[in-house]
Amino acid sequence: MAEVNDGAVDLMQVVRGDRIESVHRGHAVICDGSGGIVEAWGDPSTVIYPRSSCKMIQALPLLESGAGRDLDDRRLALACASHQGAEIHTGEVAAWLSDLGLTESDLRCGSHMPYSDAAKADLIRADAGPCQLHNNCSGKHAGFLTLARHLGAGPEYADPDHPVQQAVRRAFEEVTGMESPGFGIDGCSAPNFATRLDALGTAMGRFAAAREGADARADAMARLTRAMGAQPELVAGEGRACTDLMRAMDGRVAVKTGAEAVFVAIVPELDRGIALKIVDGGTRAAEGVIAALLVRLGVLDAGAPVAKRLTVGPIRNCRDTVTGHYRVTLG
Amino acid sequence: MAEVNDGAVDLMQVVRGDRIESVHRGHAVICDGSGGIVEAWGDPSTVIYPRSSCKMIQALPLLESGAGRDLDDRRLALACASHQGAEIHTGEVAAWLSDLGLTESDLRCGSHMPYSDAAKADLIRADAGPCQLHNNCSGKHAGFLTLARHLGAGPEYADPDHPVQQAVRRAFEEVTGMESPGFGIDGCSAPNFATRLDALGTAMGRFAAAREGADARADAMARLTRAMGAQPELVAGEGRACTDLMRAMDGRVAVKTGAEAVFVAIVPELDRGIALKIVDGGTRAAEGVIAALLVRLGVLDAGAPVAKRLTVGPIRNCRDTVTGHYRVTLG
Repeated sequence: MAEVNDGAVDLMQVVRGDRIESVHRGHAVICDGSGGIVEAWGDPSTVIYPRSSCKMIQALPLLESGAGRDLDDRRLALACASHQGAEIHTGEVAAWLSDLGLTESDLRCGSHMPYSDAAKADLIRADAGPCQLHNNCSGKHAGFLTLARHLGAGPEYADPDHPVQQAVRRAFEEVTGMESPGFGIDGCSAPNFATRLDALGTAMGRFAAAREGADARADAMARLTRAMGAQPELVAGEGRACTDLMRAMDGRVAVKTGAEAVFVAIVPELDRGIALKIVDGGTRAAEGVIAALLVRLGVLDAGAPVAKRLTVGPIRNCRDTVTGHYRVTLG
Repeated sequence: MAEVNDGAVDLMQVVRGDRIESVHRGHAVICDGSGGIVEAWGDPSTVIYPRSSCKMIQALPLLESGAGRDLDDRRLALACASHQGAEIHTGEVAAWLSDLGLTESDLRCGSHMPYSDAAKADLIRADAGPCQLHNNCSGKHAGFLTLARHLGAGPEYADPDHPVQQAVRRAFEEVTGMESPGFGIDGCSAPNFATRLDALGTAMGRFAAAREGADARADAMARLTRAMGAQPELVAGEGRACTDLMRAMDGRVAVKTGAEAVFVAIVPELDRGIALKIVDGGTRAAEGVIAALLVRLGVLDAGAPVAKRLTVGPIRNCRDTVTGHYRVTLG
């Protein structure tokens, strides 16, 4: 299997003045509803950690088991979210835990300062530190706790050999169509299973083709995709790429970012899934390339502010002078 | 002349679990005191913007003109700084402007939130926004104002055709030994002159070889190098790579980062200068590779906490679990 660096191609240039200042390379793949490759850049067989881009896969057992039967779109969107710890995120996760008879201390994701500037400022003004609710993965972990409760399993749900993570692994390997060559520990302490980029694209294609009523898996895939599109602000937050992209596409497409510059998209109206990885982990390039691919597929208007912001910029300095721009190079 | 992407080589891997998750490529060069290349990785002829890594070059006219004759190490270090806007930085720049009979509004760098968490929190608690003193380049701009006053030139000192920037360009081209192929506008609105990476390395080698008493240029080079090493916390700030590296080397070496992953070092005791550029602009790789090169030259102890932190990590998650590490690959 290919290493992440093998066969990568230039995907985004960062231009300052009239000169290319920096370049990002990577791999991208578009798959159809049966999981076949439609188009690819770089080497789609490269093995990656999907990181948070696979949260909708990690949420499949929550629905397929019946544990999440009563969860509404808001909580399902949070289960798939890398949220910014604003009040709309932390409040809903807290309510979800309360409904389970649990508290913040039952989470195993750890704490970090929220990404939301407003939430950060609130904590500073209150002279308080962040709690686990602020962790961008707290919704995913609330989903894990919901499944653990349903399974009657122990509290250490983030351990790789816990029934919750075993169920995640089975679902992950089924929808990607391959055995994972191993896992790393994610920022939130859950195992993150490695896979080939095209296998992640295959999974996204299958999500795109899923229609409710076929079987439990299709039901789960379609519900999660719909929930993400319906609640874009819960999947990330104000000003974030995922939220702005889903809003610009009126929720018809679900997109999700992952750390170290992974990005995926689920396009049900075209039965298409997208997965990409920027080799150097540069988020700006992952955001620019996913936007460009969505424009290429015809589901994102090239003139939409978020499309222009992510694919072109411009880059402005502290005095609002335009100093450069991005250039996505899909070849 | 080579584009930034041509001939780059792998310089740092980011490992999670037992798998390479991300890779940074780039170019690096070590030059001797006469400016000749001693060792290189990638293509040292690649053309880059040095960004803030060349602030000690931009400060040469300040000293060579006599304008900065009375400036102490603290202010000279600030002239070469990308500081984090802590009180020690903003207070000293404010005092410097006051000594010139000027105020913050005479700066042309624009404002951004300080990098210092403490300074940021102070502003939030005071419900205040940042001013131009917080701009990481405010010391460099105080230097520009000092030179503008000396030259009797107008207030728009950041304009490319202003006598200050013309003097900077002349000095820049002289110490790099080549005509700049053009400039971009930097984050702080000053022009930033493009050059070849090996030409930037040549300039650093010349700084390293400069001894006071030879001529005005050597005096200026040696004073600036000494000031940076003597005041490492003013060049960046607590917890920052430049500050920690210079402290770990007892100020015997001057180092300076630049945006988009440029890093330089001046090693007077060995008459060596270093310059590097990571193609994708990834700061973590620029920091890791400069530390590894300083270890390689024998001036930084591989066991120093900052050397281990930048070249190896480990990478820890929100629960302090080790999830991965860095691996610098100099070949």
